[in-house]
Amino acid sequence: MFDRRQGKLSRSLRARLTRVNLFLCDVDGVLTDGTVWMGNGVETKRFHIRDGLGLRLLQRQGIKVGWISRRASSATTQRAEDLKIDFLHQTDANKVAAVESILGRTGLQWAEVCYVGDDIVDLGALKRAGVAVAVGDGLLEARKAAHYVTKARGGHGAIREVAELILKAQNKWRPLVDEYSS
Amino acid sequence: MFDRRQGKLSRSLRARLTRVNLFLCDVDGVLTDGTVWMGNGVETKRFHIRDGLGLRLLQRQGIKVGWISRRASSATTQRAEDLKIDFLHQTDANKVAAVESILGRTGLQWAEVCYVGDDIVDLGALKRAGVAVAVGDGLLEARKAAHYVTKARGGHGAIREVAELILKAQNKWRPLVDEYSS
Amino acid sequence: MFDRRQGKLSRSLRARLTRVNLFLCDVDGVLTDGTVWMGNGVETKRFHIRDGLGLRLLQRQGIKVGWISRRASSATTQRAEDLKIDFLHQTDANKVAAVESILGRTGLQWAEVCYVGDDIVDLGALKRAGVAVAVGDGLLEARKAAHYVTKARGGHGAIREVAELILKAQNKWRPLVDEYSS
Amino acid sequence: MFDRRQGKLSRSLRARLTRVNLFLCDVDGVLTDGTVWMGNGVETKRFHIRDGLGLRLLQRQGIKVGWISRRASSATTQRAEDLKIDFLHQTDANKVAAVESILGRTGLQWAEVCYVGDDIVDLGALKRAGVAVAVGDGLLEARKAAHYVTKARGGHGAIREVAELILKAQNKWRPLVDEYSS
Repeated sequence: MFDRRQGKLSRSLRARLTRVNLFLCDVDGVLTDGTVWMGNGVETKRFHIRDGLGLRLLQRQGIKVGWISRRASSATTQRAEDLKIDFLHQTDANKVAAVESILGRTGLQWAEVCYVGDDIVDLGALKRAGVAVAVGDGLLEARKAAHYVTKARGGHGAIREVAELILKAQNKWRPLVDEYSS
Repeated sequence: MFDRRQGKLSRSLRARLTRVNLFLCDVDGVLTDGTVWMGNGVETKRFHIRDGLGLRLLQRQGIKVGWISRRASSATTQRAEDLKIDFLHQTDANKVAAVESILGRTGLQWAEVCYVGDDIVDLGALKRAGVAVAVGDGLLEARKAAHYVTKARGGHGAIREVAELILKAQNKWRPLVDEYSS
Repeated sequence: MFDRRQGKLSRSLRARLTRVNLFLCDVDGVLTDGTVWMGNGVETKRFHIRDGLGLRLLQRQGIKVGWISRRASSATTQRAEDLKIDFLHQTDANKVAAVESILGRTGLQWAEVCYVGDDIVDLGALKRAGVAVAVGDGLLEARKAAHYVTKARGGHGAIREVAELILKAQNKWRPLVDEYSS
Repeated sequence: MFDRRQGKLSRSLRARLTRVNLFLCDVDGVLTDGTVWMGNGVETKRFHIRDGLGLRLLQRQGIKVGWISRRASSATTQRAEDLKIDFLHQTDANKVAAVESILGRTGLQWAEVCYVGDDIVDLGALKRAGVAVAVGDGLLEARKAAHYVTKARGGHGAIREVAELILKAQNKWRPLVDEYSS
């Protein structure tokens, strides 16, 4: 999934990617493969390390990161703290309202938002975001509403794929590779 | 798996789907991929969030939901409480008897039942249900007994696929998409 | 994996299957997909419910079941107790010796043993068993030593596949299906 | 993945493999599939038993084994102790520095190191190792820097595949098979 040639992106999508200053995404089905483990009263979720490194690289380049879920879960909170995510919303309120509250606090615009989702509850945010992304195994309706559909499935590197798209469009990827190669 | 065109369903199956008022399913291999995690004396199971949302959407449209397993598991109980499932049977008794006990309490008929199963223990219920569904990776005998075999495997969205089939056949899906898109 | 037509089995293999009175298998990579979860000092393994039902059906038909692992694990013990497995060996001793100890206690012969393995530590038992089976994703050397290689991978129904092969060869499968279908 | 014919390896790679005396690898995405489970404040990882046996076989043949991660995790420590790994580095320091500290303690050279990685943080070590290996699902940049890319994905036997390559190149595999077959 990491072989995608940026050259295949449309000029329009690349222009949108260069404007991204805020990276927001859903949690279940996007940062995870949509599954939860239950046992002994505990809920456990699976996250991908390469997604986490992608988000850290975005933050190092000045792009804020936030997660928006309609389902409160201590597993999500644990991972968000692990990665020092800037914004975490886990309420059953409307996702559009959650994004707008973050925009209010940061002074940013919808056009600067990249939003990644997978299901019908993400449709409102996808319709407004500067870059709307659906994961490859997302609902048909989510994929139809997206500017970009990831090659990777949710929880299997979809977030890393989008993070690299943004960093490459903003010419911030090559310097990172050079730094780690030395 | 969410791309299936309802137009491909037979007229007969669509007629059956319109009559569904009770959604019942097996747990292991249907709501899960058939695996259980064991360690430290605890049994853990993996459930899919999109299945959960599918069941919640059915309930919002007035369709009752029940799970019928022959194997008692606190992991199943935990997930059932999480989703506020209407009926939960986890006894080694006959599955047909379990369904009939629910029919007795609700005053519904077998013709109004959609039942989803995967293994030989589900055969009796599959032979009686108005809509009998087997998951895509179910036992050959279960698939032979079904009106519909899901594209998705158990635990990977099979239940969501059936929930959408019912909602679409009953003309309840489009309004939900419109609500979330606004 | 449940579609295999028994008719494709060689006459020789079918004859071997009819003689099976003792079903023995390795644990990691056979009853599981070969992975273990580690965290908080606990080791967790994933087992498949359909494998478990297959073993229970064998036992109901009078075939004893045993597991032989060279790696002690409380997760394995937990699952063995859950399924009421007849013999459980978890010592670093030779697997051939472990099988022979079971043969001594039961008065059975190697020709009556079906043994399922996946790695080089299983080679000695595979070379002696009446029916030697390797899982589909087992080591090349294990597959070469086997009379039968499963379509299913370890932990994904391989044991169920072998259980059905035995039950079908012994004409015990159809009555079970009929019983559950009524 | 265990079917690879060594005959297909280039003469140059085989020569490199014969010189390996130290086996080093990254953890997340290499010994695991890159995912972590989070819940109840505990982090859990999944390891493959066949990888573990591969490492033990290397050690039995006199090759030291070490793991180098930039992310401290008690799950990794638990598995390292389980397998009696010779060197374990889990600090955010440079990976090249971590390898050189091991070289200093053992008196070995980079040319004797086989290093397996998957992401940009491994690039420095991959550029220096006598045998640089990337897992099959590793980052494009890691695969480009490698002498060998595994058929198996990380956490699905990639380490076992490399261990067998080394043992076969050093003529140590066949005696092990013969020992277990007797």
